[in-house]
Amino acid sequence: MGTSSLFDVSFSSGIKTITMKDTRSRNALSLNMQKELYKYITADWDDKKLRAIVLQAEGPAFSSGHNLKEFNFDTNDKSLLEEVFKMATKLMLSITECPVPVIACVNGIAAAAGCQLAAQCDIVVASDKSLFSTPGVSVGVFCSSPGIPISRTIPRKLATYMLTTGLPITATEAKSAGLVSVVCPEDQLKGQVEKICAAITAKSRYVVTKGKRFYYRQIDMTMKEAYKIGELEMIERISESEGQEGLKSFIEKRKPNWKHSV
Amino acid sequence: MGTSSLFDVSFSSGIKTITMKDTRSRNALSLNMQKELYKYITADWDDKKLRAIVLQAEGPAFSSGHNLKEFNFDTNDKSLLEEVFKMATKLMLSITECPVPVIACVNGIAAAAGCQLAAQCDIVVASDKSLFSTPGVSVGVFCSSPGIPISRTIPRKLATYMLTTGLPITATEAKSAGLVSVVCPEDQLKGQVEKICAAITAKSRYVVTKGKRFYYRQIDMTMKEAYKIGELEMIERISESEGQEGLKSFIEKRKPNWKHSV
Amino acid sequence: MGTSSLFDVSFSSGIKTITMKDTRSRNALSLNMQKELYKYITADWDDKKLRAIVLQAEGPAFSSGHNLKEFNFDTNDKSLLEEVFKMATKLMLSITECPVPVIACVNGIAAAAGCQLAAQCDIVVASDKSLFSTPGVSVGVFCSSPGIPISRTIPRKLATYMLTTGLPITATEAKSAGLVSVVCPEDQLKGQVEKICAAITAKSRYVVTKGKRFYYRQIDMTMKEAYKIGELEMIERISESEGQEGLKSFIEKRKPNWKHSV
Repeated sequence: MGTSSLFDVSFSSGIKTITMKDTRSRNALSLNMQKELYKYITADWDDKKLRAIVLQAEGPAFSSGHNLKEFNFDTNDKSLLEEVFKMATKLMLSITECPVPVIACVNGIAAAAGCQLAAQCDIVVASDKSLFSTPGVSVGVFCSSPGIPISRTIPRKLATYMLTTGLPITATEAKSAGLVSVVCPEDQLKGQVEKICAAITAKSRYVVTKGKRFYYRQIDMTMKEAYKIGELEMIERISESEGQEGLKSFIEKRKPNWKHSV
Repeated sequence: MGTSSLFDVSFSSGIKTITMKDTRSRNALSLNMQKELYKYITADWDDKKLRAIVLQAEGPAFSSGHNLKEFNFDTNDKSLLEEVFKMATKLMLSITECPVPVIACVNGIAAAAGCQLAAQCDIVVASDKSLFSTPGVSVGVFCSSPGIPISRTIPRKLATYMLTTGLPITATEAKSAGLVSVVCPEDQLKGQVEKICAAITAKSRYVVTKGKRFYYRQIDMTMKEAYKIGELEMIERISESEGQEGLKSFIEKRKPNWKHSV
Repeated sequence: MGTSSLFDVSFSSGIKTITMKDTRSRNALSLNMQKELYKYITADWDDKKLRAIVLQAEGPAFSSGHNLKEFNFDTNDKSLLEEVFKMATKLMLSITECPVPVIACVNGIAAAAGCQLAAQCDIVVASDKSLFSTPGVSVGVFCSSPGIPISRTIPRKLATYMLTTGLPITATEAKSAGLVSVVCPEDQLKGQVEKICAAITAKSRYVVTKGKRFYYRQIDMTMKEAYKIGELEMIERISESEGQEGLKSFIEKRKPNWKHSV
């Protein structure tokens, strides 16, 4: 699928695996790194063979966050900063908009925008040696944008603790707090990710895509509003050929023959 | 209180206990099952003797979710589907609108709309052998409507994990995630539910009803908006006869004589 | 810094420590208590030396909540009640509006408005013997206003359990549920609070203030809306002198010389 100095990207059995490998910078999300990652995440959205994306990293850091050297400047020209954060928003929202689940596989420290990157993914699997932190405040850059997905997945008292002190939490604490979907010993990490990927690839891509979209659409609504659109969503999906095939396969006690589209 | 082929319903000491007993279908929420359950939940709302509802099940499944046979059809007639999901929304919202707390007592698997049914209840008590899952995606029917109450009570990374993989979580994990209020060994389940019911029946029904309503009213507001209506709520409730009786009983060190209305 | 019959207030190394000491009333939040606490919390907001506020208590209760004697009256005059709850809202919101983090240090029972007071703080540290409850419903006064910050930090199934039954949860359960940022044995409580304070005082006050404000501003928005204002927030903060000093100190491998303002 292509590699660069910053990434290895492979594609096998429906899973695109994106490996950050800029270990020298602890996988800092420089503008170039962000652009490449955005490119790898958003490529192949129309390829029905793409069923999930796994985002992982080489080295002791999942990602250390933005490249602080890009923030340090003496002129009044904010154009680089603007480009960096416009790209960051674009990258983060692309994960949510991606038609297939994006799974962060964290085996080390996920800091600042690196923690944001993990928190933005749909599913987070982490080894129990991993750490999560938002230490930007220590260098004068409060992790306000990392706080956006983090504060939408962990409780307020822990989010404000992490953001104002910069102190890390462990993977076990992150699991308890909701930032991590599955925590396990390092030697089981690959197996856990494979189990999740196998579960997802056994489904209809079309059904997963529609389901993911509905999930994020309803999450900011009141419960009543969500139920109103939920009824229609269920009826439409069930009536379509992919829903009907799934139901028939169940009743006929056979494996479904997904078309992965309708 | 009445029984049917699908339910046992008893009423004792202020507690209406609704037992799903269609073990053959693993308590599938067929249209008939939903209609009966709705009837049992919404009956007696004006009866001041009704103080809480316990929803439990016979057999290894709390509920397996919708009856998939009702989703399987070859015509273009969506009227049955429409009826099923209109009823489901009505049933789910009736739990939230019910004037007394509805307590799910889960001792087994709660799957798909069965997991939704538990998540929709005000309080969930579960034995530690229980499992919670949203496996609809496996048969082409993403659990979008079950996701509505689930995604409002557990963290996003776990909700998306459950919804896209269909994999179950244990009762202990569900407790840590917030889907379960109390988890305990199976042999303590009855005792835990009785403890909660005893706590609720010792209160004024009127006070609990008003409190439950306020809770759900303020939950979708910003904190500032909630405080604005919160002040008035406190003042009004305290000024009423039931609030005054409670306070006097406290100061006079005696049991309150609730009227359960004002 | 001043003491009264109700409070000890000290100021040292940037930390204002407010100690509730009305042990006779179990630190009940009487109107006077609330007024004084509001005064201590909101004093010195313009003093750059103020870097964090620690709120703690003498005796076995952090706070038992409102003074119920102020709720008990026989006339139709609601003016006292109105004053009490107007003051309560003002006090609670002042914690969120405070330019520096407010840290609750809980070593005992935090009940009703006392639980609300803890939940309203930015960070909550609790000894493992502590308990959290909202028992107002037992005396006819449903903890509707305490429920406002509580229901915004713990999962719904636990909030409704606490509010309708009045039963307490332990500090460990409160940590798992998100009501507590850090839980520890009683003899480590002081050390944990000091560690948090040391982390905060090492930062720029200006950066922490702006970060706290942004956090609460974005929390009620949709993710997309939050990202929109998040980009600007990052760019503005990084471009300011305090952001630049932090970044330069990092690159030059030296301690930052914060001005604590721009």
